[in-house]
Amino acid sequence: MLELSRRALLTGSAALAAGALGGSLPGHAAAPAAGRQAAAFYRYKVGDYEVTSINDGARTFPMPDGFVRNVSKDEALAAAEAAYMPKGQVTVPFNPQIINTGAKLVLIDTGYGPGIAPSVGLLPAGMAAAGIDPKAIDIVVLSHLHPDHINGVKTADGKLAFPNAELKVPTLDWAFWMSDENMGKAGSDMMKAYFQNTRKILADQTGKVTKYDWGQEVAPGITAIDAHGHTPGHTAFALASGNARILIQSDVTNIPELFLRNPDWQVVYDSDPVVASQTRHKILDMAAAERMTVIGFHFPFPAIGHVEKDGTGYRLIPVSWSPVI
Amino acid sequence: MLELSRRALLTGSAALAAGALGGSLPGHAAAPAAGRQAAAFYRYKVGDYEVTSINDGARTFPMPDGFVRNVSKDEALAAAEAAYMPKGQVTVPFNPQIINTGAKLVLIDTGYGPGIAPSVGLLPAGMAAAGIDPKAIDIVVLSHLHPDHINGVKTADGKLAFPNAELKVPTLDWAFWMSDENMGKAGSDMMKAYFQNTRKILADQTGKVTKYDWGQEVAPGITAIDAHGHTPGHTAFALASGNARILIQSDVTNIPELFLRNPDWQVVYDSDPVVASQTRHKILDMAAAERMTVIGFHFPFPAIGHVEKDGTGYRLIPVSWSPVI
Repeated sequence: MLELSRRALLTGSAALAAGALGGSLPGHAAAPAAGRQAAAFYRYKVGDYEVTSINDGARTFPMPDGFVRNVSKDEALAAAEAAYMPKGQVTVPFNPQIINTGAKLVLIDTGYGPGIAPSVGLLPAGMAAAGIDPKAIDIVVLSHLHPDHINGVKTADGKLAFPNAELKVPTLDWAFWMSDENMGKAGSDMMKAYFQNTRKILADQTGKVTKYDWGQEVAPGITAIDAHGHTPGHTAFALASGNARILIQSDVTNIPELFLRNPDWQVVYDSDPVVASQTRHKILDMAAAERMTVIGFHFPFPAIGHVEKDGTGYRLIPVSWSPVI
Repeated sequence: MLELSRRALLTGSAALAAGALGGSLPGHAAAPAAGRQAAAFYRYKVGDYEVTSINDGARTFPMPDGFVRNVSKDEALAAAEAAYMPKGQVTVPFNPQIINTGAKLVLIDTGYGPGIAPSVGLLPAGMAAAGIDPKAIDIVVLSHLHPDHINGVKTADGKLAFPNAELKVPTLDWAFWMSDENMGKAGSDMMKAYFQNTRKILADQTGKVTKYDWGQEVAPGITAIDAHGHTPGHTAFALASGNARILIQSDVTNIPELFLRNPDWQVVYDSDPVVASQTRHKILDMAAAERMTVIGFHFPFPAIGHVEKDGTGYRLIPVSWSPVI
C-alpha cells in the first residue's frame, strides 16, 4: 500500500491506474474560483488593549547582489531556499499594527501605500475587512522613514490617508532624512531614492508632524525604544497594559528566516550595519530572556511570535492562530 | 539607553519616569474594540485547483492524564509549554480544506459543528467570509469518523449542512464505527462517546453515503491514501493538478508541536497507536524526502507547511502567508 501511496503522491496517477476516476458530470461547473486572497488581519489582546495586526502585503523579488552585505549571495540564497522561498528569490512581508487603547486608536507604520505593486499597499483593504475606519485613527506613529513604513501615509491622489491623525516621527530620523546635506552625500541609488521618497511623502508635513524621542510614550502605554542602526532614529516599541507587555521590534531584524537566524548578517537596508547588528543582539537577547511576545514588521503574517536563542543566532516560534481573542 | 529600554519592556514605566505621558483627552473615546477575531480562511493554488483552508477553530484544555500514552505527563506538558501553550494546557486547532477543481467543489472534513464550544464550529463563518455557499459544495469527504471531522455534517437543527453534497466515507471506518459489536467492546468513555456520536451524526445517512477505498480518487485529482492506525480507515489525500501536488495528511500527526516533533508519541485518540506511529514515519519520511507541501488538520492555521527530518523526529516549517494566490 505504501508503494501505491508513494505513486499517488508523486504522480497523482494511482486512481487512474485503479480505474476509479470520480464521475465529473459534463456541463457541471463548480462555484467560480475566487481568485483572490483573504484580507489579512488578526486580533490579539495585550492587557486591556486590543491590537489588530494587518498584512500590507509582501514582495517576492530576485535577490539582488549585496542583499546581505557580508555573506556570499549563495549563502544568503541557501537560507532563503531553506525557508522554501522561490528559487533565487526572497520574500519580504509588511505588517503594520493598530492598537486600540480604549482612549486612542494608534497605527504603527503604514505600509507601502498605493501604486508600488499589486501585492502590497493592502493596509486599507485589511482595515476595511477589520472594520476600522481610517478617519478614526488618532495617532500614526512611524518607526522610521523607509518607504515601506511611510508611503501609506498618503492615498493615491496625495491626500492624507488618516486625515484626523496626529503624525509622530522619530526626531533623529526626521533630522537625518530631511537634511539636504545628507541627501547630497547619499552614495547608492537606493539611498538617493529613499531621500527623495521621504520628501515626496512627508515634506508637506513639515511643521505639522510631532517628533518623538526614545524613552517617551508615543501614545498611552506605548513607549519608544532606542533601536538605531537600521536607521539613525529607528525605533522599537514596548506596549504595556496592566501586567501584559509585548515588544514591537519594527525592523530590528528584517525577515527572520535570514536575519533573526543570523543576527550578524547585514541587510542592505541598514544605515549603520555594525550598530544594527549590535542592536539586534541587545534587543533579541532581552526578548528571549524574558520570553516576550515579539511583533516584527517583516515577520510572516500575523507577525507575532517568541524569539529563542539558537546556536549563534535566534529562532522565531510563530504564534498559533487563535480563533478567539 | 539599553537600561531604559529594559525598564520600558519589563515595566512599561519608562515614559512615566521620563514624564512624557502622551496627552489623552478626557472624554475622547477611540473606536470601540471589535472584540472578535477575523474569520480565518486562506487561499492557495495547486496547479489549476484553488484551495481554501478554513479554520474551524481550536480548543484549549487542561491536558488530561494519558493524553500522550507512552510518555509522562510532565514530558508532554513540557513540549506544550515549549510551544508557548498556556501552562498545564494543550491547544488543538481544526482546519477543513475546500478544493475547487473547476468542475467540483470538494470539502475535506467538516469540523466540530455547532454546540460544542464558542471556539469551534466556525467553518460556516469561515465559508461565509470566503464567499463559499454551503449549498454549492458538491462532495464532502470525511478522512475518518471522529467528532471533530464529522460533526459539521449537520446544522444545529440536525439538517444536512451541505444539502447538495455527496457524502463520502472511508469503507473501513464506516464498518468499524457502525458495528454494534465494536461499540459493545468499547473500553473507554471516550470510545463509547465516539461510537454514539458517529450514530448521532451519520446513522440517518446509512444507505446514502458513498464508501471509498484507498487508491481511489474521491474527486478528480484527489486520491485516498492508506493512513490507518489513527482509526482503521483513517485516510490521507494526495491532491494533484498538472505538475503540482500536495499531501493532505489529515490526522497522521495530531498537533505538530508534540507529535510531529516526536512521531513515536502516542496520542490518546489513536485506535492502534503502534500502527499509527509506523504510518507517521512512513508518510512523513516520504513528505520530507520529496519536500512536499503538507496540510495538517491539526496544524496551526493556515495549516500548511513543509516537513523536515530533525533528529529522531520532524519539524514543521509553516508556509509564509502570501497576500496573493
